[in-house]
Amino acid sequence: MHLENNVYLEGEDALIIIDRRKLPRSEAEVYCTDYVEVARAIEQMMVQGAGDIAITAGYGLYLAARELERQNGGRDMAGLKQAADRLCATRPTGFHLAVLLGKLLERVRKNAAAKASEIILAVLDKSLARQREISQATGRQAETLLTSGDTVLTHCFAGAGLLYMFKYAKENGKDVKAICTETRPYLQGARLTAWSLSEMGIDTSLITDNMAAYCLSKGMIQKVFAAADRIAMDGAVANKVGTLQLAICARHLGIPLYILGYGGSDRRTLRGHEIPIEERDPREVLEFQGTPITGDRVQAYYPAFDITPPELITGIVTVSGIYRSVEIGALQSH
Amino acid sequence: MHLENNVYLEGEDALIIIDRRKLPRSEAEVYCTDYVEVARAIEQMMVQGAGDIAITAGYGLYLAARELERQNGGRDMAGLKQAADRLCATRPTGFHLAVLLGKLLERVRKNAAAKASEIILAVLDKSLARQREISQATGRQAETLLTSGDTVLTHCFAGAGLLYMFKYAKENGKDVKAICTETRPYLQGARLTAWSLSEMGIDTSLITDNMAAYCLSKGMIQKVFAAADRIAMDGAVANKVGTLQLAICARHLGIPLYILGYGGSDRRTLRGHEIPIEERDPREVLEFQGTPITGDRVQAYYPAFDITPPELITGIVTVSGIYRSVEIGALQSH
Repeated sequence: MHLENNVYLEGEDALIIIDRRKLPRSEAEVYCTDYVEVARAIEQMMVQGAGDIAITAGYGLYLAARELERQNGGRDMAGLKQAADRLCATRPTGFHLAVLLGKLLERVRKNAAAKASEIILAVLDKSLARQREISQATGRQAETLLTSGDTVLTHCFAGAGLLYMFKYAKENGKDVKAICTETRPYLQGARLTAWSLSEMGIDTSLITDNMAAYCLSKGMIQKVFAAADRIAMDGAVANKVGTLQLAICARHLGIPLYILGYGGSDRRTLRGHEIPIEERDPREVLEFQGTPITGDRVQAYYPAFDITPPELITGIVTVSGIYRSVEIGALQSH
Repeated sequence: MHLENNVYLEGEDALIIIDRRKLPRSEAEVYCTDYVEVARAIEQMMVQGAGDIAITAGYGLYLAARELERQNGGRDMAGLKQAADRLCATRPTGFHLAVLLGKLLERVRKNAAAKASEIILAVLDKSLARQREISQATGRQAETLLTSGDTVLTHCFAGAGLLYMFKYAKENGKDVKAICTETRPYLQGARLTAWSLSEMGIDTSLITDNMAAYCLSKGMIQKVFAAADRIAMDGAVANKVGTLQLAICARHLGIPLYILGYGGSDRRTLRGHEIPIEERDPREVLEFQGTPITGDRVQAYYPAFDITPPELITGIVTVSGIYRSVEIGALQSH
């Protein structure tokens, strides 16, 4: 499946990242040989999606463990903690990053006999396999929501689960089309979602972000799907900026909006307003792939995510089933 | 005032158009020596805004009259009608184009003694002066809606009236800031509105089109202003695509949306759904300033305008006052 994983170890001491900002026009590989380079790659959005960011940061921690082992001949928990903190500070909104890094440190702590780098690698291997299972199961659940003849509106890149949803629909003989918002400023909708779906043989059309309500109002779209970087226990969803306005418009125009929630909610975040919204460098809005698009005196503002309240979400699709947004906290808290 | 007029005659037989697609990074002049070139320039969006499109087409008709006079030594109503039809077919959504071209033909018909080209030029001179007066008066009306401390969200380029609104607010000592949507795919918000306002010394920030609801939800914006390419007698407004979703979100979040309606409604259009929505070449969505942004198998859809229903519009600001959207038809029909 396209875009399911874009990081690979080369040998034991280098990580290769396929730079998602360059897809689909070129497949640029970025080599990272220490955790600081991995952290910078994450900050610069070479990796995209809360789950993939977490896995990439995990490999960063692995590189840190390898380096500490070379230097000290053994484990260095303080050094590992420092690397994990640096990696965790890269992107504040998604919760998978903190969860996976915390899990990796805990496993290392609990298993004093083994080498830290080997423990981390073993956990990452399992996490990657589990992530694929979750994507497939979530896609399978989501597919049950689709009817032949549907056109689905997507925003940003909603993860491999979205691609599996279309794959299974096709396998089940359902004729389902896609309309993808381009998702400025990084164009993940154009570069990742529309590209992947079209390569899978799905009838896929691109629109700019300001065309969504018009398409919704014209009966062109039957369902809206987006993902979640974090789901609070109250059912509020943090996702790529623009999800909120799709949700408001979909509700106003009577179209259901589903969130691909994969593993579910973050039990440490009780309410949506507790989720930190990352504000990125305004220059990323003032330029398009390096070309300035306005005058030099213009400022900019770049919130990378927004919060959609639970009452605007029709359902949250997870690995274990489809829930009403307000139910998700209770179901996930056990 | 910036951007009040971007067409000029050079001598008697050439029209210069400042290509708005290149602003603000370069001020490219395009020479047109016949009406077909003018029609193509309008189709290719070198000119922007319903009023300016109409004036430019008027100059196209003037060039046609000059050419017919050179060929025939006199007037050729059939030739002029053919040129007017070609110019009128360039952009279907705005109504000023058909109104001005119709007026020019009528004036020529009614004044058999004078040269057609001279009649057209005299009407265009008056129309330009009147357009400036309307922009100033509309800006003055709109300024009364602003309170010091307001931040105004704008979409696309809402015409010179928007710039006058900010100019008068500043002259009246009101501290009013602007947030402008970039307005893909042609980026008029970034290239025209944000640039012009920032050059006027207004504190101006750019956002991508998908960030509007987040900014509205965060209390960052007190008023939303957009323009109208056509206002139906029922108060529905056709404007740059994206206006509808701003209107839905503004209403959902309790923020007023005002339309700069300049001369008012089109009395020949009773209801919003009668307004034809121009669908442009999908390639314009698949590229960013000539660079492809997705895979080759992806299709696209490009509605250039949308229709905002009257119930989502707080007020329509015209040269003669500020009206509730549902009142506009009654007030304009006398």
